[in-house]
Amino acid sequence: MQRLQEIDHLRRAVNVLIWDQNTYMPPGGAAARSSHQATLNRLAHAKFTDPALGRLLDALEPLREALPPDSDEAAILFWVRRDYDRSRRVPEAFVARAAAHFSQLFQAWTEARPQDDWQAVRPLLEESLRLSQEFAAFFPEHQEPLDVFIDHSDPGMTAARMDELFRELREVLRPMVQAIKAHPPVDDRCLHQHYPVEGQRAFGEMVAACYGYDFQQGRQDLAPHPFMIKIAQGDVRITTRYREDDLAIGLFSTLHETGHALYEQNIHPRLADTPLDHGASAGVHESQSRLWENLVGRSRPFWEHFYPRLQETFPDQLAQVSLETFYRAINKVQPSLIRTEADEVTYNLHIMLRFDLERALLNQELRVADLPEAWRARMAEDLGVVPSNHRDGVLQDIHWFSGFIGGSFQGYTLGNIMGAQFFQAAMAEQGPAIQEEMAQGRFDALRTWLTERIYQHGGKFLPDTLIERVTGRPLSVQPYLEYLQRKYSELYDLSTVQAGTPGD
Amino acid sequence: MQRLQEIDHLRRAVNVLIWDQNTYMPPGGAAARSSHQATLNRLAHAKFTDPALGRLLDALEPLREALPPDSDEAAILFWVRRDYDRSRRVPEAFVARAAAHFSQLFQAWTEARPQDDWQAVRPLLEESLRLSQEFAAFFPEHQEPLDVFIDHSDPGMTAARMDELFRELREVLRPMVQAIKAHPPVDDRCLHQHYPVEGQRAFGEMVAACYGYDFQQGRQDLAPHPFMIKIAQGDVRITTRYREDDLAIGLFSTLHETGHALYEQNIHPRLADTPLDHGASAGVHESQSRLWENLVGRSRPFWEHFYPRLQETFPDQLAQVSLETFYRAINKVQPSLIRTEADEVTYNLHIMLRFDLERALLNQELRVADLPEAWRARMAEDLGVVPSNHRDGVLQDIHWFSGFIGGSFQGYTLGNIMGAQFFQAAMAEQGPAIQEEMAQGRFDALRTWLTERIYQHGGKFLPDTLIERVTGRPLSVQPYLEYLQRKYSELYDLSTVQAGTPGD
Repeated sequence: MQRLQEIDHLRRAVNVLIWDQNTYMPPGGAAARSSHQATLNRLAHAKFTDPALGRLLDALEPLREALPPDSDEAAILFWVRRDYDRSRRVPEAFVARAAAHFSQLFQAWTEARPQDDWQAVRPLLEESLRLSQEFAAFFPEHQEPLDVFIDHSDPGMTAARMDELFRELREVLRPMVQAIKAHPPVDDRCLHQHYPVEGQRAFGEMVAACYGYDFQQGRQDLAPHPFMIKIAQGDVRITTRYREDDLAIGLFSTLHETGHALYEQNIHPRLADTPLDHGASAGVHESQSRLWENLVGRSRPFWEHFYPRLQETFPDQLAQVSLETFYRAINKVQPSLIRTEADEVTYNLHIMLRFDLERALLNQELRVADLPEAWRARMAEDLGVVPSNHRDGVLQDIHWFSGFIGGSFQGYTLGNIMGAQFFQAAMAEQGPAIQEEMAQGRFDALRTWLTERIYQHGGKFLPDTLIERVTGRPLSVQPYLEYLQRKYSELYDLSTVQAGTPGD
Repeated sequence: MQRLQEIDHLRRAVNVLIWDQNTYMPPGGAAARSSHQATLNRLAHAKFTDPALGRLLDALEPLREALPPDSDEAAILFWVRRDYDRSRRVPEAFVARAAAHFSQLFQAWTEARPQDDWQAVRPLLEESLRLSQEFAAFFPEHQEPLDVFIDHSDPGMTAARMDELFRELREVLRPMVQAIKAHPPVDDRCLHQHYPVEGQRAFGEMVAACYGYDFQQGRQDLAPHPFMIKIAQGDVRITTRYREDDLAIGLFSTLHETGHALYEQNIHPRLADTPLDHGASAGVHESQSRLWENLVGRSRPFWEHFYPRLQETFPDQLAQVSLETFYRAINKVQPSLIRTEADEVTYNLHIMLRFDLERALLNQELRVADLPEAWRARMAEDLGVVPSNHRDGVLQDIHWFSGFIGGSFQGYTLGNIMGAQFFQAAMAEQGPAIQEEMAQGRFDALRTWLTERIYQHGGKFLPDTLIERVTGRPLSVQPYLEYLQRKYSELYDLSTVQAGTPGD
């Protein structure tokens, strides 16, 4: 535990460096900051792959078998063993080579994207693909290369299982998008008036505090790309960004990051400083950001309480705008080019596109050179819109240009699916209390339920185990589809699209 | 160099942690932050005392003798050898014991000071004294215990030399204070109107930028106790604090920290990431904060340019206040209880008091139990004011309550002395250019001169060597005394007090 704690402290220090880099660091600090982070990461990695740690783990094997499988100690041994074995499979030289390449690629991407210069990064991306395949080959027990990366961020999940979930979603979402497109577009001009930042900040932080985010154990700052970061059990920070001509951007990114932060702030204190002091997986983490952003924060009951407060904050802009108009504006569905700006219905289609393309790349069914065309074709097919440049196409997301290709997208959709399944279970058990509180702008019953069932356990359980424990059944897209259909059928009068009645 | 760089990166990361702790860290992060810092410091210390480093240094000894003594490489070897040998003399167990004690003492002091509870910390301070003597005994080659600590922060300096400098100063300062006390007090009410923080910040940062502080490679934030901290060559940050009822506090602490920052920002880039990438000593560093704060920032030529700008910033408060009234207010001399709030004339008397008391403690000529009474007696003798409590007396400064007793005060007065000696040399060589620029609010000639002579070299030279190189003669109190006498004779019409004509 002492060894692991030392590693943990190095990683937490890196988090302070990352937070600072994205919030307050002056431009002149950038170059040194990268080397400082690289050094600390390297020291942490060296300590984690130290064979002495392996010998301690070996010595603990008999104990592990004797421990109650549900105990924290058993979970710690399971996860550390798993991560240690994974890390030991990858040669140091490969780690260094890949890190150097990704650093070069990322730099090239930050320059190529504004200039729309696909050719500048294409050869580097080809090298990334080779490195990703090489990395995957260190873990030949997996079915296909993508599984290696998925298993890292969403333990227990596979590309085949994702594919099945995506198929079920797609059967409902594509016709739903088609049906919505047949309607006249929603008028969301009320969101695009002038909204001074100070009022946005005050309102967003007020809601975050109502959700239960503890500002004594966290803080919110500005960053170009919003994120949540944990520096310690008592120091979980969020960031947001504002646009004065778009009220939705800042508000919903605050609520999204608050969801992530509630998870981390409510992990049980006895797990602080242990290897379980983090969320269970990318998907489970995202389930909480989506739950608090969308299932709560874009719901009618939420705004029945908060809209009058928002009108008080922005009387000039909103006094004449009805709750219904506002509610429709924040839930407007409109196929667009940019994933991070997509609505609840089209969002997952952006994810599926990326998932299928990276799977095809890794399985050598698609060449990097053909990626832009494949992107455009799929956008046309699924969303009916096509980027006229690479910037809003294949160069759009940071993910493929800062690390291995694979595994970083499925978590977003898993989060949507799990979030709805968790929320449905919470409502089934605590519905009246949750709704009664929400009408008063309070969320104690919901947060307490989530803390007891999910948050407090941190990274203890495998996602599949956690979902079964919390909802009594395996992962299923049904709650999510039911939620979308109920909500958007009402908003867009889509009586013809039914769950279990796939169109297309 | 690779080993040293790794250590440097750990220490720079600690600096980010310290900066954050003092600026933005939420209260809940405090406990974990201490352990994170302790871990990183421990790792850096273990790497620095690794015998493998010693073997590399041994292997380089022949090279060192062959190198030009003025080369960077020779200086790096000299300083690393010196620090390595020092570190190896102190057993690990002692380091851990002392760190644990100081952490406990600091905690006790933060609670005892507001409650004026001397007895609560007295036994802990006695243990500090024992630890300090024990530490000093690891370095028996020094004349007396205090020398060990002085040599650490001001290499080459000794208690005996300080004593001599202090005697020379004291002979002039005590009668000067007496003579000033005989005058009616200066009216400084103009500083104590209501000054909104935003205007103070804008004006202070404007001056810092005029001094040449590069905000692209640094930033200023609020902190309870102002400080400068270097995170990288391109990331040198300052902090300040404001009081809306006292214009001087925020403004002069900005100018003070800017002086420290100009030093660090202008160290030659080829020394970045080497063990020379820092100021030459506590005293030399302080010479720059004092020079920019006092010799420039409290001078008449400075305010002849900037006072109209300050009046524009605060027209309601200053439009009716003359430059002369303002200039006299910011240079008011008045014996007071608190070191950090003392004026240029009385400040050094506060330092001498602490220096003499810590020397007496270390030499077992004074018992900790008798410290409060010794403090009061000396305050009465030198300043004619006596604290009515411990808070403003022996419990006043953090220094004795957070580390070894000894060596942390003399640098402040050394800074005053050196600052005047450097400034005199700069004026002798570049006087007309410096003055012409200052009349236009510009400082390029002065900063360029200081950069060329002092800043660019970082920690390369011993302070005594540096002073000789820069000013052509050894350290001397004369320039400082001449500065004080010229300035304050004019302000207070003290025709009778002359340099070299000690009163008392």
